[in-house]
Amino acid sequence: MKAAQSLLALAEREGARACFANPGTSEMHLVAALDSAPSIRPILCLFEGVATGAADGYGRMMQAPALTLLHLGPGLANGLANLHNAYRARTPIVSLIGDHATYHRANNPPLASDIAALARPVSSWLETAGATADLLGLTQQAFQAARRLGPASLILPADIAWSDDTLSPPPVVAMPDQDLDAGQIEAAARLLGPRTLLLLGGRFLSAEACASAERIGVKTGALVMIETFPARVRREGSAAHLKRLPYLSEMAAAALSQVETVILAGAAAPVAFFALPGRATRLAPDHARTFELTCSSGGVERALRSLADFVKAAEVPAAPASAPSPPAGSGAIDPAALAQCFAATLPANAIVCDESNTAGLFCYDAAASAPAHDWLTLTGGAIGQGLPLATGAAIACPGRRVVALEADGSALYTIQALWTQARENLAVTNIVLNNGAYAILRLEMMRAGVNQLSEAADALFDLKRPSIDFCDIARGFGVPGERVETPAALIAALKRSYAAPGPALIEVMIR
Amino acid sequence: MKAAQSLLALAEREGARACFANPGTSEMHLVAALDSAPSIRPILCLFEGVATGAADGYGRMMQAPALTLLHLGPGLANGLANLHNAYRARTPIVSLIGDHATYHRANNPPLASDIAALARPVSSWLETAGATADLLGLTQQAFQAARRLGPASLILPADIAWSDDTLSPPPVVAMPDQDLDAGQIEAAARLLGPRTLLLLGGRFLSAEACASAERIGVKTGALVMIETFPARVRREGSAAHLKRLPYLSEMAAAALSQVETVILAGAAAPVAFFALPGRATRLAPDHARTFELTCSSGGVERALRSLADFVKAAEVPAAPASAPSPPAGSGAIDPAALAQCFAATLPANAIVCDESNTAGLFCYDAAASAPAHDWLTLTGGAIGQGLPLATGAAIACPGRRVVALEADGSALYTIQALWTQARENLAVTNIVLNNGAYAILRLEMMRAGVNQLSEAADALFDLKRPSIDFCDIARGFGVPGERVETPAALIAALKRSYAAPGPALIEVMIR
Repeated sequence: MKAAQSLLALAEREGARACFANPGTSEMHLVAALDSAPSIRPILCLFEGVATGAADGYGRMMQAPALTLLHLGPGLANGLANLHNAYRARTPIVSLIGDHATYHRANNPPLASDIAALARPVSSWLETAGATADLLGLTQQAFQAARRLGPASLILPADIAWSDDTLSPPPVVAMPDQDLDAGQIEAAARLLGPRTLLLLGGRFLSAEACASAERIGVKTGALVMIETFPARVRREGSAAHLKRLPYLSEMAAAALSQVETVILAGAAAPVAFFALPGRATRLAPDHARTFELTCSSGGVERALRSLADFVKAAEVPAAPASAPSPPAGSGAIDPAALAQCFAATLPANAIVCDESNTAGLFCYDAAASAPAHDWLTLTGGAIGQGLPLATGAAIACPGRRVVALEADGSALYTIQALWTQARENLAVTNIVLNNGAYAILRLEMMRAGVNQLSEAADALFDLKRPSIDFCDIARGFGVPGERVETPAALIAALKRSYAAPGPALIEVMIR
Repeated sequence: MKAAQSLLALAEREGARACFANPGTSEMHLVAALDSAPSIRPILCLFEGVATGAADGYGRMMQAPALTLLHLGPGLANGLANLHNAYRARTPIVSLIGDHATYHRANNPPLASDIAALARPVSSWLETAGATADLLGLTQQAFQAARRLGPASLILPADIAWSDDTLSPPPVVAMPDQDLDAGQIEAAARLLGPRTLLLLGGRFLSAEACASAERIGVKTGALVMIETFPARVRREGSAAHLKRLPYLSEMAAAALSQVETVILAGAAAPVAFFALPGRATRLAPDHARTFELTCSSGGVERALRSLADFVKAAEVPAAPASAPSPPAGSGAIDPAALAQCFAATLPANAIVCDESNTAGLFCYDAAASAPAHDWLTLTGGAIGQGLPLATGAAIACPGRRVVALEADGSALYTIQALWTQARENLAVTNIVLNNGAYAILRLEMMRAGVNQLSEAADALFDLKRPSIDFCDIARGFGVPGERVETPAALIAALKRSYAAPGPALIEVMIR
């Protein structure tokens, strides 16, 4: 298994420090070889969707590739939904996917399937190792692609991994910074003005990127917004108040109704999440022109700084700090009270993983005045991301508190993530918002023009028969849980969890 | 949404009676249209892997198509692993997969992906509806393909489902029975003898199919075996003692070492589950010739009966009934004691869904003397199948007890199935075999020639840090749980659960 060892040694050299895994028989030699790559930490997940979601959280926080180790087509399939989110976030991930030995494939054994077909839709780069001699070159390419473009997938037939051929690592390849195109900055500057939308997005909106955009907005009157579901935003200072483009297409279209020019800084053109009968799917007015700032990964910050400097935008003076207002103590918890409690207690430098859908709608804006923090969202719309994402973010940033803001229905997709949090004693506070329903679907059904909730819909959107006890489930996975029904109890529970080491689950009963 | 209503009316006509679903916004009009198809029962699952696994269990028991309703690429992706198992079992399933409206796809919204690419590896038939006018013709084709070949996938863009065009159902198409090839039966008969393996498999090995095969074996001296992972076997009378081909390739090869001819009756040629360094992957001797009885779905029974009659095989006299021996009462529960307890208590006409891997290894043979029952296995090797499979089987057969024999690691893949069991009050006894490990991987690592369990492997195969409490988890999902540590306690718990309506979970601590 020298080939597997050489592969992992190269992965170490390329910066891999964590491997999120649920391996199987076809990956045995890679598992065994992990012993010879001691700087790569193996993290066991109980389901591949947890492994890939955790790799996404890790990669977003590290801005360096996470490894995953997946078991043939079905293991990959279980991880696809969260790889879809990572693909949309362009998160650096290298997935090693085991396959049958090359000579066994023609036998069509039970676990055989077309792994490449499954991987392609979520891969910025995809190869199947066909010969041991190609293994290290492919591995290096996978890391390069992951850093530049997002999730890369390398399919590894078992006999190639277990080969005892001696392999020499390829020479180190430096990735040159892309030069900034000065002409482009100038062209963008000419387009700035009160009827221009500057839409921010991309892999990571740093504090400086947000501050530069804010300066541009103040100077030129341009409307500055962050894409609806950013991969990661660092929120500090007054730029923490930058708004995200609303999720509901009718609200987004209203916000953009005066826009004549759209400048995209790392973001995609604003489109509806879903088409609905009779409604527009492109959110800017039809006549608006679009200008794309071509930003390499990590280049958004540089482009925005250059643009701010070019238009001679001044620093925005720090606004007087206004701590979030204290919430009401008793009564039920509705989305507004939730947001207040959340914002008033958020610890400094927290990492918020937000898959809160309807019930958490107000938390982002409320937290603008909280201490500086990072905010990660559901980039690809594939639910079941929040708890795994938080797990991976906590592995990446051991000194920081991670807060998962999680809808009940979404939490249940990958609830097994709690066990990895317990196993690794991760500082994650899982806030599960229990409204006993797929509430987003009730809303979407109305928006789709089906005005009366049908009986079938009532059966398919309801999570109350029977009611689910998240505290019992958490305890089963080794995470302490507590249920709260009032703002005062919620605040107390949040403070307790932030003060304690390790994970906790707070089940918030939402009115 | 007349188009959606027409589609479901046709599905009703084609025999659909259950729809396993976790729908999303792009399927709203199909959900609403379910109201106009009252004979199709909507079953909510908390995760698509539960929905597809339940559809598999339902289809295997009904031998008629189950419907699933899945949400775009990621929803399908979550259901792929169990569709892989269903594909290998050739289970009749029609999956309706929502997609973005046709005109919205070019906008590349966050949830867009190549759904067809994801579906192809698990689909016997696959189409994307391109125009409303084609919708019903495609739906009919999907049902025909599902009945004949296995899982069929129909991708439905939202605007096609919500169209108000009036659609006329296509004429009913009868599926003619395939004629049996008399020459083939004669050719197979000539090959029967003491050095011949008659390997049984396919969608459903009925009691008559097994009895015919047993007759053939007694008459001709042929070795009669069932494929390692059959989709469904009805076990009654002396034919319940037919052996399955062993999972471990070295054991299987030993069992077949004298074989010169292999006759395949619905089964695939015997190959190893995994390749291992230096071991054969084809399990019959290299010089053995293979003869395939071409059986249409459901044709295995007819072919075996014809073959048995052709060789003038007599009925096998009923063996004196020997009830399984009573197990020891105290001490720890090891795999042998588990098998005894299980076999001694199995209720008549039970349906066993077996994903028990290492710990349940002896249950199948032990249950040969139990009352008649059906046995369903993990056909495609994609774990996380057992609890969903049991859920669907219970929907299909409301008067029968379903018993899931479930390994701990596998149970955790799709543990959310418990909630649907509670919601529908299904008569499922979930026996979770807790050995605190991915024990199968420890075994496979040794077989792969890695003789010392590496540190990384130890980290990645262990489920004890922290230990998982399945009873807490079950309670959280609304299913009562109890933990047992002795054979006496296990027997008592099994009897209690078989006597009570509704689901139960029994956590068996395995030594």
